[in-house]
Amino acid sequence: MTPPPPPHTFVDVLIIGAGPAGLMCANALVHAGVKSYGLAERLQREGARFDRAAFYNPGPDGGITRTERTQVIFAPTARYPYLVTRHQAGIESLFHDSIATKGLVVQRPVVPTSIELSEAGSDLENPNAYPVKVTLKRLDSTDNEGEEVVHAKFVLGSDGAHSWVRKALDIVMDGDQTDSIWGVVDIVPDSDFPDLRNWSFIHSNKGTLMNIPREGDMVRFYIQLPDDTDFVNRETGRVDMAKASPERIMETAAKIFQPFRVAQVGEAEWWTVYIIGQRVARTYSVQDRVFIAGDACHTHSPKAGQGMNASMNDTHNLAWKLAYVLRGWAGMSLLKTYESERLKYAQELINFDKKWSKLFRDKPQSEANADGVSHEEFLGMLATSNGFMSGIGIHYEPSVIVDPRHQSYASKVVVGQRMIPYDFIGAADAVPVNIHDMLPSDTRFKILVFTGDISEEGTMNRVRALAERMVAPTGFLKRFGKGAYEDMFDVLCICATKQDKMDFTDVPILFRSHWSKVLLDDKDMMGRCGGGGYEAYGINPAEGAIVVVRPDGFVGTVAPFEHLDDITRYFASFLLDRSSVSEGMRRLCRL
Amino acid sequence: MTPPPPPHTFVDVLIIGAGPAGLMCANALVHAGVKSYGLAERLQREGARFDRAAFYNPGPDGGITRTERTQVIFAPTARYPYLVTRHQAGIESLFHDSIATKGLVVQRPVVPTSIELSEAGSDLENPNAYPVKVTLKRLDSTDNEGEEVVHAKFVLGSDGAHSWVRKALDIVMDGDQTDSIWGVVDIVPDSDFPDLRNWSFIHSNKGTLMNIPREGDMVRFYIQLPDDTDFVNRETGRVDMAKASPERIMETAAKIFQPFRVAQVGEAEWWTVYIIGQRVARTYSVQDRVFIAGDACHTHSPKAGQGMNASMNDTHNLAWKLAYVLRGWAGMSLLKTYESERLKYAQELINFDKKWSKLFRDKPQSEANADGVSHEEFLGMLATSNGFMSGIGIHYEPSVIVDPRHQSYASKVVVGQRMIPYDFIGAADAVPVNIHDMLPSDTRFKILVFTGDISEEGTMNRVRALAERMVAPTGFLKRFGKGAYEDMFDVLCICATKQDKMDFTDVPILFRSHWSKVLLDDKDMMGRCGGGGYEAYGINPAEGAIVVVRPDGFVGTVAPFEHLDDITRYFASFLLDRSSVSEGMRRLCRL
Repeated sequence: MTPPPPPHTFVDVLIIGAGPAGLMCANALVHAGVKSYGLAERLQREGARFDRAAFYNPGPDGGITRTERTQVIFAPTARYPYLVTRHQAGIESLFHDSIATKGLVVQRPVVPTSIELSEAGSDLENPNAYPVKVTLKRLDSTDNEGEEVVHAKFVLGSDGAHSWVRKALDIVMDGDQTDSIWGVVDIVPDSDFPDLRNWSFIHSNKGTLMNIPREGDMVRFYIQLPDDTDFVNRETGRVDMAKASPERIMETAAKIFQPFRVAQVGEAEWWTVYIIGQRVARTYSVQDRVFIAGDACHTHSPKAGQGMNASMNDTHNLAWKLAYVLRGWAGMSLLKTYESERLKYAQELINFDKKWSKLFRDKPQSEANADGVSHEEFLGMLATSNGFMSGIGIHYEPSVIVDPRHQSYASKVVVGQRMIPYDFIGAADAVPVNIHDMLPSDTRFKILVFTGDISEEGTMNRVRALAERMVAPTGFLKRFGKGAYEDMFDVLCICATKQDKMDFTDVPILFRSHWSKVLLDDKDMMGRCGGGGYEAYGINPAEGAIVVVRPDGFVGTVAPFEHLDDITRYFASFLLDRSSVSEGMRRLCRL
Repeated sequence: MTPPPPPHTFVDVLIIGAGPAGLMCANALVHAGVKSYGLAERLQREGARFDRAAFYNPGPDGGITRTERTQVIFAPTARYPYLVTRHQAGIESLFHDSIATKGLVVQRPVVPTSIELSEAGSDLENPNAYPVKVTLKRLDSTDNEGEEVVHAKFVLGSDGAHSWVRKALDIVMDGDQTDSIWGVVDIVPDSDFPDLRNWSFIHSNKGTLMNIPREGDMVRFYIQLPDDTDFVNRETGRVDMAKASPERIMETAAKIFQPFRVAQVGEAEWWTVYIIGQRVARTYSVQDRVFIAGDACHTHSPKAGQGMNASMNDTHNLAWKLAYVLRGWAGMSLLKTYESERLKYAQELINFDKKWSKLFRDKPQSEANADGVSHEEFLGMLATSNGFMSGIGIHYEPSVIVDPRHQSYASKVVVGQRMIPYDFIGAADAVPVNIHDMLPSDTRFKILVFTGDISEEGTMNRVRALAERMVAPTGFLKRFGKGAYEDMFDVLCICATKQDKMDFTDVPILFRSHWSKVLLDDKDMMGRCGGGGYEAYGINPAEGAIVVVRPDGFVGTVAPFEHLDDITRYFASFLLDRSSVSEGMRRLCRL
């Protein structure tokens, strides 16, 4: 009997690989238009928090001695001035539970067996076409009935360092394997070392070790193993796992910690030994129809805590762009910014990793070794690493979605970087609110109107006039998208007015679609937080400014009231006019 | 056929009535010994928060005008400087979900049909006897099979204002019905009144109204209805619900709000009209075997937000005492403090309610009415009300569990009041931690050792000597309870030492059973919070102090290092010695 042909399925986006990068994308797309991801609260409850770093160097007697303790976060307005560690399965579980609320479940065990991309220009240009054909096979099926052919508008390959998608599309990885061999071990310590609940960097004469606090009483040691370790097979250049063991990693750790005692309670929870590769994919997409993300496009050392973070940020960057194209709100060209933004970032990350790896491997500075790594060099790298970890240090270059021409009107809200967190208070209820809570990843652009002090009549008049121009038929609110403008734009206003000088009902109705949309740059009722926001953002209260925040939380552009037209031009560079949307739809219907 | 006799069941505690008071007790008992209730996070997420109060009085044109806005919380170190509203079903749902994690489910529909208390002194004195016999009947059963006889060591009647338990035991309510008639309505407003997201007190010539923000966009109006309202049947003295309606309540509201416009969107979510009774039960228990709590023992006006709060605090006070007696850790006399503490509080609350009700009903002060209620009088009442609501204003008098003799050693940690919240930092990790997070309701006494600055050698020596005395066989840690002393006592230490001057490993091992147990009175790594705790608590760093916090979070006693014996005496006044515990157990076995 001939088996029946495999079923054919048509999807908007097929995601291959359900690690953090793939799950982040799935979660973002399944919640597109919904108010918030809302994952932070549970992550903080389940993860381990640490606020302090400790640095150790060799002391006069050869053992280690503490050089300094510092904070771990240097951004002065950081909302969460600490790091949180959580194992990958815990992070994935957040996403699994979140997508399940929308009925989405990851299909396992399924593997792709072939991928084909249509070469027809008409297919590639038409966002409604399904130009990618992927054959999937269920691993728990023994015959052809386990096959399925999926026709997708877009495919994401978030399938790890050995990405099948990347290999199937012949995307080259640039870079090399390093000669850094790392041992990593998770233990519950029995120790008299006082800094295990801190992020500790231990530069000893016996080697270099980084400690990070983990959930509960656990800690993780990252140890750069000596060059002469026998964990590596010199012939194959690969780790010889038969020789490696957590006990042997702990032996090295114990030497580094001297004169402190560090043993483990019970078995190691997890351990590994690996050789670090520093590589980045030459391209992140094929024809803007198949994308790769996460470990599939970049690998580096674990020191900056950027493996999982960089991966999730890749697809956080991609997801809203896919949503805009799929909805017919933006042209295909918007998708080009995924590679231009994220590939450059990966290259910066790897350059940083190279420098930091060298600092880790090199001997510490001492009287006998004046050329060694100084404590100051190390601290400087930590601050840079901070920027990568928090995302605050990520800076996307000017593009259709990054327009810094009027940067000076909000000089500290850097266009191309994440919006800086800051506490304001609600005008209606005086409740403190961090601006980030008003910028959920709900696929909307946030239009933040910094009005100045509206208790001054001249300012109030300017603000009223601005509102009128914004709602005009030629204004950007009315020109782009489909349906209600609130689907694409969320308008907020932030007044430089004290709470006892105004009511939220004073601002034009455009700026208060809901009572929660009006914020004040003032202290909360207890005087504990808030105030000084205009200064922190570099905005002159006498002039005001409009700040456009992208759906992914990055600042898209800034403009003074007088250049509202430049905001319209900004959006026109990647959004489709309502007329062209209708035109395009009509054309499609005729096909 | 003769039906089978009803089954007999034996339980430690039978709770009759599953409103907030009963559920609080069930939750506390089912989690006794478990780290924390942990309900605050969800409550805050689901409730409505408000930080600001607004006061309106009649203006010169007869309409209302705003007099002032203030914070709603006046306690300077308040951890949550705001109020949160959540409807009762939402609160009950927190408890239902929490007890369900321990396998406990409320039985409905079941009613008690008889209650008998043994009169035998031996039964009443023996904490292991079952002197209360309650017959229960399932309402969904038609014959005797729906009957069950429960023999309980203790019974709690938390069955509301019309309490069956109270009536069955002939407990008298003292007090009267007032002539205050209140209308309450929950609506989503359509309004130009700017203070609906604040706690607003509107004293108009047309009547008095209190607004509280509710979940989402809802608000609740409490309106003291005019004395001549026809909502009350003058013959019966009861509310005539046929005449009352949400529309008629809103008509009164609309008049009070003039010149502002207040209408409602859609239907009223909920509404009621009632006459306030101000009554308190003459006793809270019969033979310390049957207790009543919540509305069963006190009723008053809703203005102070104390209905549900007072009820839950009743059983929060009772639950740990029941646990101690049931475990054989404390004698029966501990249970007498339930009535002595909570009945006095209810009387204070009702006295307060009477004064505040008068302020509400009286006309506001004006040129024409110089004797009217002044704004300052009103503000003063709000501050008092604050104390009741937060619990900070509740002060239990000296008793076996409240011993203020050494109050001066921690002058601002008032013995008999709740422990004041304050931010310290972890010595091991520099993470900020509010002292309240270290005081979960886990039925343990918290022994807070304020060491002073241990980087000074003399202080360190005193602290070492104290630790030695504390672990001595005659010390309280070893003298009371059964098994490990950590089941009854949790020892913490708080050092007046800067984080760069010490390691948590410096303190004696008694004070660091876990790395999280050592706190510092220092700022966090960002300099945002912490520091000044010794001053806020009125503790001299040169002397130090020991603060004993009861399992319900109230301060039990305070002592200087030199009077550790007084702490032992404190515990001896209500805890059973280990020897007597064993003796008692042996005697029981011989019976």
